[in-house]
Amino acid sequence: MRIDPQTTNVGFIGTGVMGKNMAGHILDAGYKLFVYNRTKSKTEELLKKGAIFLPIDELARTCNLVITMVGFPKDVEEVYLGDNGLLKNARKDSILIDMTTSPPSLAVKIDTEAKRRGIYFLDAPVSGGDIGAKNATLSIMVGGNKEIFNTVLPIFNLMGKNIVYQGKAGSGQHTKMCNQIVIATNMIGVAESLCYAIKSGLDPEKVLKSIGGGAAGSWSLTNLGPKMLKGDFAPGFYVKHFIKDMKIALDEAIKMGIKLPGLELALSLYEELSKIGEDNSGTQAIFKLYMK
Amino acid sequence: MRIDPQTTNVGFIGTGVMGKNMAGHILDAGYKLFVYNRTKSKTEELLKKGAIFLPIDELARTCNLVITMVGFPKDVEEVYLGDNGLLKNARKDSILIDMTTSPPSLAVKIDTEAKRRGIYFLDAPVSGGDIGAKNATLSIMVGGNKEIFNTVLPIFNLMGKNIVYQGKAGSGQHTKMCNQIVIATNMIGVAESLCYAIKSGLDPEKVLKSIGGGAAGSWSLTNLGPKMLKGDFAPGFYVKHFIKDMKIALDEAIKMGIKLPGLELALSLYEELSKIGEDNSGTQAIFKLYMK
Repeated sequence: MRIDPQTTNVGFIGTGVMGKNMAGHILDAGYKLFVYNRTKSKTEELLKKGAIFLPIDELARTCNLVITMVGFPKDVEEVYLGDNGLLKNARKDSILIDMTTSPPSLAVKIDTEAKRRGIYFLDAPVSGGDIGAKNATLSIMVGGNKEIFNTVLPIFNLMGKNIVYQGKAGSGQHTKMCNQIVIATNMIGVAESLCYAIKSGLDPEKVLKSIGGGAAGSWSLTNLGPKMLKGDFAPGFYVKHFIKDMKIALDEAIKMGIKLPGLELALSLYEELSKIGEDNSGTQAIFKLYMK
Repeated sequence: MRIDPQTTNVGFIGTGVMGKNMAGHILDAGYKLFVYNRTKSKTEELLKKGAIFLPIDELARTCNLVITMVGFPKDVEEVYLGDNGLLKNARKDSILIDMTTSPPSLAVKIDTEAKRRGIYFLDAPVSGGDIGAKNATLSIMVGGNKEIFNTVLPIFNLMGKNIVYQGKAGSGQHTKMCNQIVIATNMIGVAESLCYAIKSGLDPEKVLKSIGGGAAGSWSLTNLGPKMLKGDFAPGFYVKHFIKDMKIALDEAIKMGIKLPGLELALSLYEELSKIGEDNSGTQAIFKLYMK
């Protein structure tokens, strides 16, 4: 099987803050692109650039490669396993790739069902946020059949820079959980540090200059620290999605019999943030808990 | 006042894992260097390269610039405020710089006493660990008199890359607290993430490849993650010193009336680590709490 703009119809389901940029790169590379999003208006930018809107079942019948980037595990379930979903309608030998962050166990379930129907499935969640999606610098962590991974690498290369095959089905999702676990506690640290900086009378911008380049340095500190200080809480990555991810990770950790108190604390803080109405803010809004 | 190898006798007190490398750079730049360390054997490398060993009071009388890089706040107090200490014995107009991480309030106290005696004092703690000390790439965060900061910049430049004047006396220490607060929770995240990776059956080296370049990326993940996986718990930065720093930060936070649950959790985990005999391990030993 070859993937190229001449022979491949690409489908993209879920054109939100991440998906629209990822799909845009595929369109820009000359692929024929078919898109679906529950809120149709969110596909408009892509439609203007030449994409075609189709409902999921028709999209599945039209495309030999379908990428999904939706919201919650229940959305992934519905898009793949529903009556009008991908698995019941996809072409034999087509490739389905879920780039949503969703439970490893669900990835295994979809993979099993896909195999039964002669369809290929990869779990390939990403990291890097809206900036990574826009600049095609995402990290993509992939689980599933390795040959299929190699086949679709040209597509991954349009969206990301650091693309790693992690192992059997579910491994991409497990890797993403590892990613979210690091970020979870790091967000706490960035917020607590900048709160301390302000309350102790320091100039927090100067503090960022000092600590960003040393052992405290991190993507979150560099990219989200300044947003906290500016009061810019617009979502790159939604609080509600982060809570979803942390819940998946914690569920999996409990299944494995490991205790992750840092992750537990982060989840409880973000749930507090959700309760005060910040579900649709970016994850940097955790700063509000400290500065209230 | 000018600082150059022709006119400046530099003293360096505290030649442990960090100090010996920092002092070495000053020696390499051609300065006459006088050193003191409680355990004299730890000065030997420097003595072989031409440094001269002196007790603190004599060193104070001999040097016009003295740098301290000792262990705990009580060591800083003794070295500066003790009867045979720096303040009672330093030359008028000499410059004393404490690069130890120690309480902001102690820096203010030393600064006040120094001023009374016609001596200059800067608090200038560092970040970047043993690697930063060795490669002269430390972050140096400085509080105190700005003119004196400008005067000693040539010396700071020998040890660090990111040298920022943060404000009045104590500001360097406050900035270092901001640094440690970020690191504290980040260490939890790195340990929890790698524990999850292993327990979920992933190849943790591959996981690091995936997540190190994205939104989870940090100095700790890149530099200490691989050490955790190799079981290399040798100190760059000691558990016992990290606990000391977190206690200072938490004390200050309480004084300011702010609650930092991430820092509290980190301190409690590291105290647990200390209880099982890991005081002299590197901070990456937190991984042991998860993998036991």
